[in-house]
This record gives sequence, C-alpha cells and structure tokens, in this order.
Amino acid sequence: VGPEALSLWNSKSTFTSFGVFFLQMGWGDLGAFGEPSKETPNLDQMASEGMLFLDFYTANPLCSPSRAALLTGRLPVRNGFYTTNAHARNAYTPQDIVGGIPDSELLLPELLKKAGYVNKIIGKWHLGHRPQFHPLKHGFDEWFGSPNCHFGPFDNRALPNIPVYRDWEMIGRYYEDFKIDLKTGEANLTQIYLQEALDFISKQQASQQPFFLYWAIDATHAPVYASKHFLGTSQRGLYGDAVREIDDSIGKILKHLQKLGISENTFVFFTSDNGAALISAPKQGGSNGRFLCGKQTTFEGGMREPAIAWWPGHIPPGGVSHQLGNVMDLFTTSLSLAGLQPPSDRQIDGIDLLPAILQGKLIDRPIFYYRGNEMMAVRVGLYKAHYWTWSNSWEEYSKGIDFCPGQNVSGVTTHTQEEHTTLPLLFHLGRDPGEKYPLSFASDEYQRAMEQISIVVQQHKETMVPGVPQLNVCDKAVMNWSPPGCEKLGKCLKPPKSDPKKCFWPH
Amino acid sequence: VGPEALSLWNSKSTFTSFGVFFLQMGWGDLGAFGEPSKETPNLDQMASEGMLFLDFYTANPLCSPSRAALLTGRLPVRNGFYTTNAHARNAYTPQDIVGGIPDSELLLPELLKKAGYVNKIIGKWHLGHRPQFHPLKHGFDEWFGSPNCHFGPFDNRALPNIPVYRDWEMIGRYYEDFKIDLKTGEANLTQIYLQEALDFISKQQASQQPFFLYWAIDATHAPVYASKHFLGTSQRGLYGDAVREIDDSIGKILKHLQKLGISENTFVFFTSDNGAALISAPKQGGSNGRFLCGKQTTFEGGMREPAIAWWPGHIPPGGVSHQLGNVMDLFTTSLSLAGLQPPSDRQIDGIDLLPAILQGKLIDRPIFYYRGNEMMAVRVGLYKAHYWTWSNSWEEYSKGIDFCPGQNVSGVTTHTQEEHTTLPLLFHLGRDPGEKYPLSFASDEYQRAMEQISIVVQQHKETMVPGVPQLNVCDKAVMNWSPPGCEKLGKCLKPPKSDPKKCFWPH
Repeated sequence: VGPEALSLWNSKSTFTSFGVFFLQMGWGDLGAFGEPSKETPNLDQMASEGMLFLDFYTANPLCSPSRAALLTGRLPVRNGFYTTNAHARNAYTPQDIVGGIPDSELLLPELLKKAGYVNKIIGKWHLGHRPQFHPLKHGFDEWFGSPNCHFGPFDNRALPNIPVYRDWEMIGRYYEDFKIDLKTGEANLTQIYLQEALDFISKQQASQQPFFLYWAIDATHAPVYASKHFLGTSQRGLYGDAVREIDDSIGKILKHLQKLGISENTFVFFTSDNGAALISAPKQGGSNGRFLCGKQTTFEGGMREPAIAWWPGHIPPGGVSHQLGNVMDLFTTSLSLAGLQPPSDRQIDGIDLLPAILQGKLIDRPIFYYRGNEMMAVRVGLYKAHYWTWSNSWEEYSKGIDFCPGQNVSGVTTHTQEEHTTLPLLFHLGRDPGEKYPLSFASDEYQRAMEQISIVVQQHKETMVPGVPQLNVCDKAVMNWSPPGCEKLGKCLKPPKSDPKKCFWPH
Repeated sequence: VGPEALSLWNSKSTFTSFGVFFLQMGWGDLGAFGEPSKETPNLDQMASEGMLFLDFYTANPLCSPSRAALLTGRLPVRNGFYTTNAHARNAYTPQDIVGGIPDSELLLPELLKKAGYVNKIIGKWHLGHRPQFHPLKHGFDEWFGSPNCHFGPFDNRALPNIPVYRDWEMIGRYYEDFKIDLKTGEANLTQIYLQEALDFISKQQASQQPFFLYWAIDATHAPVYASKHFLGTSQRGLYGDAVREIDDSIGKILKHLQKLGISENTFVFFTSDNGAALISAPKQGGSNGRFLCGKQTTFEGGMREPAIAWWPGHIPPGGVSHQLGNVMDLFTTSLSLAGLQPPSDRQIDGIDLLPAILQGKLIDRPIFYYRGNEMMAVRVGLYKAHYWTWSNSWEEYSKGIDFCPGQNVSGVTTHTQEEHTTLPLLFHLGRDPGEKYPLSFASDEYQRAMEQISIVVQQHKETMVPGVPQLNVCDKAVMNWSPPGCEKLGKCLKPPKSDPKKCFWPH
C-alpha cells in the first residue's frame, strides 16, 4: 500500500514538520518521473522548486511495515512489523490482526512532542487498530482518518465496515457515513483530507506552534476513488483521476503554506509507501515506470519510490539527488531539523538527509529489501544483489494474480522462492535499471562488486536483532466491531467469540 | 536506428531551420522523460525552455524509412522506402542496397532552397549511397558525414569500410581515417559533428543567410562511441556516455545560437528516427521507458519518440503538448515557417504543427504504424488498434535476437505474424501506455472506438497509392568500393561482378 511523506520544519525558533503518505503511487506516476500523460503539474512544480530524489526507497514492498518504518526510523524486522508464519512473506494490518506498533517503539511524533511540536495524522494509520495501538497513544495529538484500508462495503455481520476516527473516537464508518461509490468511483474523501490539512496548518500558524503533519491519504489504493470534479478528467482513467486530485491537493497545501508566509519555515517531503500495485492495473493501479514488477516484490518496481523535498529558501530549486534514500531517513532527518538526537538505546536505520539536501553530499549507505524477516536483496552503490528471488507462487499466479504483468525475466521474476545466497544475482542499476541482465558470475565486475557487498551484508546480519513479530496472529474477534465512540453513534457491533489463529500470508 | 530532428526558422525576413536526427535514442533516454539517471541536463533545459511533445512518433521503426519520411513528409510506403520481398518486413539501406531516394520525391531542402535557404546535412544520410542518391543531388548544399551506418571495421575485400564525405567527395573511411575504437568505445566523431554545426551556423549568421541544418549524428547507434572526455562519465555505461556527449553538444549548439543573437530566429526540433534498440541493451542500447519493445517493432517502444520544440520568444517555456505528432510533420511545419506551401501534386502525410506549438491547439489526426507495406497498427486519439502483431520470428528469437527483452505480453509480442484484421487488438494508451491489457472485444468501449477507427483505416487504405519499392534489390557490386574522390586519396577498391539479388529482410 503506497505512501508518500511530506515533512517540514522551520529553520528559526518555530519548527514545523509536515508529512504526506500516499497509497500505491509508483515511481512512474508523476510527470516529473516520465509518466506519459504528464498530469501532475503541482508535483512537477514542487520538484522544480525543490529537490528530486531519483534513488529513494521504501522500507518494505507493503504499506503497514513501511509506515511503521517511517515513524520509527527502523526496518520492519526490528520494529516488529513482519511475520514469521512462513518464509519471506509480506504482512500488513488487516481488520483481524491482533498485533500493532509495540509500546517499546519510539515514534517520531513522540519525540517531536518533547520539542514542542503538535502532531497530526490525516488518513490511514495502519499500525494496528486495537485500542493500545491508537495513534494518540503513540505521540500524535490529532487524528482524522481510518485505522485500516478502506476496503468494503461489508455486511457488518461477518465483517464490520472500517471506522473513521476524529482523534480518540470514531465518527462513522466507510460506505455508511463516508461514501465511496464503487460503481462510479466517486468519493469526496480527498477533499475532506485536504480541508483537514489546510485547517490544521492555519490553526498552527495562528498559534505560532510548530507542527508535524503526516498526510497519509489513500485515494490511489484500490478501491480507487476521486471526487466528482475530478472524475473523468484524466487520460489514465479512474486511477489517474485520483492522482490528479491528490496532485491538486498538494498544490493547494503548498500554496497555503506560502500564503500564510510559513513556506520557508516548512520542510515538506513527498514519497510513497510501496510501488504501484500492478495487480490493480490498469484501472485501479499505477505505474512503476520502467522498473521491474510492483508492490509485494523486492524488485525495483516494488520499492523504488517517487520522492521530492521542498523547502523554499533553503533547498535550491531544480536540484536532483542520487543519494540512496529511504522513508526511514525521514525519521532521522526530521529529528535533525528539530534539533533532536535520534534515540541511542536502539538501532536506527534512517540517516539524516540534510547534508544530501542542503549541501549536495552523497552519503554511502546500503538499501535492504526485505520480505518478512528475509533479506531478499541489497543495493550498494549502483549494484543490487538478489539473495532470494520470488514474485509469487504458481498457485496464485495461475489464479491470475500477477505482480509483474507483461514482464518476465527468466530466473528473476520466479514463481518459486529461489535461493541465491551462495551466488547472488547481481544487477547494475545504472546500465540496467529494469533488472533484466544479471552480470556474469565469472566477470571481474561481479567479483569486485560482490566482495564489497558481502561485507555490507555480513555486517548487517551480524548486528541484526529482530523484534518480536507483530503480524503473526489474526482473530476475527478483534475486528472494528465496537471502536471507541460507537455507543454515541449507535454503531457498536457484537464481536464473535475469540479464535486466534496464525494469519495466512500468501506472498 | 533512432533519429532526432531539429528544425529552425526565424520569424523575420531571414528564415532559419535546423534539424537533429539521433540514432537509436528512445523515449526513456532523457531525464525529462523519466530516465532514472537523469543525465541529460541540456535536453531537459531545452524542454523546460520549449515544448515537450509526449505523443510524438517516427514514421517507421527503422532508420532509413524514417529519414526518408522526415525529408519527404510522406510515409515510406509512398516514397518507396520499403520492401515487398516478404510480408511486413523492415528494410533499410545497407551497403549492398541498389535503391535509394527516387528523383521523383521532393525533399525538404529542395523546396527550402527556392526560398533562399542554405541546407546542410551533418551525419548519416541513409537514403541511398549510389551517386544518383547523393544528398547534394537532392537539395542539400553541404554534407559532412557518411551515407551508411558506421558498422565495421571491414577488410576492404569482402566489404569496404564506410566512406565519410565532405560535400561531393569522400575524404576518408571509418576505422581508417575516422577512428572508432571498438574495445574502449572511444571516437571523437560527435565532437567533429558538433564543430561542423557550430561553424556552419556561424557562417550563415555572418552571411545573413537562412539555413536548414539537419544534424543526423549516430553516436548512440551500435557500435556506440563517445570521445575521451565523456568515456566512463555515465551511470549507464558506454551508451550513457554517448548520450551525455550528444546532450552536451546540443547544449553548445543552442548556446551558440543565443550567443550569435539568432536564437529567436531559429526554430529547433529534437526527435529520434526509431525507438531504442533493445537488442543492443544494456551496453549499447537505450531505453523506451515503460513502452513495449523497441526498434523494429510497431509497439510504442519502437515508434514513440522523445520530441522537443525550442524557439525562444515564440514558444512559451515549459509547455507540454499531447498533439499526435510525427517526424513527417517537420517537413510541413518547416515549409510553413518558411512561408512555403507543401507540394500539391502528391499526398503529403505530415501536418503543420505550428497551431499546436504556438496556440496549443490539438489537431485530430491518426498515426499509422507500418512494417514494409503492411499497416500493422493505427492510433486514433488514445486508442491504438493492432491489425497485425509480430515481434520477430521464432527462428530469430531462438538465436537470442529479442526486440522485447524482459517483456512478454501474451498474444501481443508474438513470434509468428498474427493477423487481427477482422477483430483488431485494441489498447487505450492513456490507461495502458505499455500495451499490456487489450480491451475486451465485447465491451461497448471496444465497439465505439473501433467504429471510429475503421473509418480512418478504410479511408487511408482506399487512397493509398504505394510508391515503387526501393529496398528490394541488393548487389555487392554497388557497395562503397569507389566513391567519388577515392582516386585522390588512393582509396578506390575493385568491386566484384554485379550479381543483383532480392535482399533478405528477416524481420
């Protein structure tokens, strides 16, 4: 489920931060990244006024773990957002998940709070929906949005509709109080989320309080939607309509910051929580450009993300960075901007991107590509080594579930889990960003690159202490039957008897 | 063989024109079109100062026919640049080709000459190398470059090395007098071509004579080369080095126009003669972004091209056009800029793009995709209908010749010639630019779109009068054994006995 993050701070006494997380938006969905319809004038302008990151990654090819990684600065395998139910499986937080973000994890808003920040999340939380995981228990001061994906409509018997919260309590449910018309694709949710953002920013500006806004909207996640004004406006169909509405909203948010005179005090970052969901394409899914496969996979299409940093007066316009970046870096960078240190009692995977953003430095660091607790691949410089390859199982593939539609690289996009740990498949992402031409094992180049990569991997594995896996147990009894506030609305539902089981993660 | 065209004119009394034709440069090779290394700052700047065409096509997926189409404004099937030796085959002008551009065709420089233009071609001509096809017999006043591709080195017994001409006579041969080091990829040819362009422009500016410059360089055509200064500078390997040098050269040419104070009198267009040659990738071939397949095919990757119009003071900066364009339009547009009418005694396929460029109009017109004399596909609006699909034969494919590496769309990238004339495969290029999801034959959308397309195709076929095919006969005796000027250099070679045969065109 693909996020984007904006984060912003001011440079003076009042610090400001601001994060956007989109769902399911791929590298190839922006005009600035070569989408041929070029329908994102606001994001393209944001890029031309700020800095484009061309080698930016998410921490996981799936939404919940990426979001947990962004907010903790740590790989999902450390913060517990993974499963050990089967080998190398993606897991997230559906309604029946028992787990969520552990109390032991320190989230970005918890830390920023100590420096006087007011923190708001607008949109999908996805770090657990049970009471102990509530965002306001983990540092956020305000919330408008939902704990899970907006799947539905459900019958409220076998499955409850997903609640929408304002702060501590639910204020309605999707499809009941917050309409999404699956036939026409119409829903005005992005407009609501936009207004929430504008109001919050206005309020913070008026009270002169620094803020962190995490704008985690989901219009580009299936079921895709857009409001009436945007329906039918894109060459790309409904998915494109949703992208256009998000693009328009981001333009309005940036203009609002400028109008209020706080754009130079506000650091904004845009990125995504996973690659475009090609299984939903072409009607409900986006594009990863020329990269291989999409969401759910550890190929570039699954984890390489569009990314833009914007901070007028600080970031020189039109910049381009090849810094290897990761959504976890937004944790460390945000702390740095707020004058805070990252926690020293735990491993933090995010790095401070400010030297890359403000001074054009390139910091040497690897990118790890995980599925569950298995390190599938690693990128060091321009080289990417696959230790395991898998798209999905033959069983799923034969049912028409295809994470790589129209793409097939023999021995790479495999439908069985292929182990290459003794002789990794190596690609040069400069000459071959599409991961189509593995280097010859016998070449000098292979030998030289793997020597360097092996050291990085060995070090990573030696110091890796996995967290307790949070995404192993599912139970229908924990679903959103009776969220706080349901009594007032007469929307409490009766849960079934508890029956905890291992969650089934097919890929 | 991928070309790009620049054409320029002034708006006052002195008209100027200027064309660039690259080889083998794909849609995805420019930063502005999403190439992830983003190594084309000059072309990207040209785009930001001018207008980017997102739906621009070449007239054929192979070099010679596209070049003939650009200079005549007519489809290759009309101007004779095709073969009937076998069904739906691409053909070009190798050394043993007997044919070339017919005298009956009117070339752009012939027409411009009447309006006082001085016309120069720098680089590869490729419209026939025998004396009657010489560019100076077809309207050009000056020539520096070669008649054929820079393949080699040859032994001068079975095969002569390709000559390099200055105007009427050869001044040396590739690999002998004009070095290309196949091991290191070093050659300073692009620098020579650049200097030729700068000198010509200076001379024209000094003499106040309007000009048409057709800069048809070939550094990105295999064997790919770059000069020493650029070798090893790209993330993309040798191909990227060549792109960087071309990008740098174009930047220098545009700056030269500005320095001489004639940029506002000079209309410049950049485009390519075919999609990137994926069979040469990743070391010697470029990228077609997310489009399907490459050179030699009638999928988008074979014929959709990067395209930029630049004309400071006339074209508003940062514009983007979805006008369906074609290299043949440069013929008509050039005439329009020069105040000339296209010939009325023949069918002209190119349209005048000035309303699209200067007033942002969208002109309704189809794009035809040919292989030989077979119309394989047609685009009308956002719909593309395939009447025939073929990548290459099983025989070729089994030898490792792959025009669609890593891509495989079942029933689309076929290895047998598949006829769909009664029920064409239909794609919506907005939702599905990668041609992966044919529309359901039973859908209303299919019916509606095909009704419209059928009328366009019927009209096209009814009025089509094919020219005499020029690319059917090959003869070793006609090779570049003794080009004019060879005596002075002592470089005349003895031709073998004439033995004309049908050329073999495998794909």
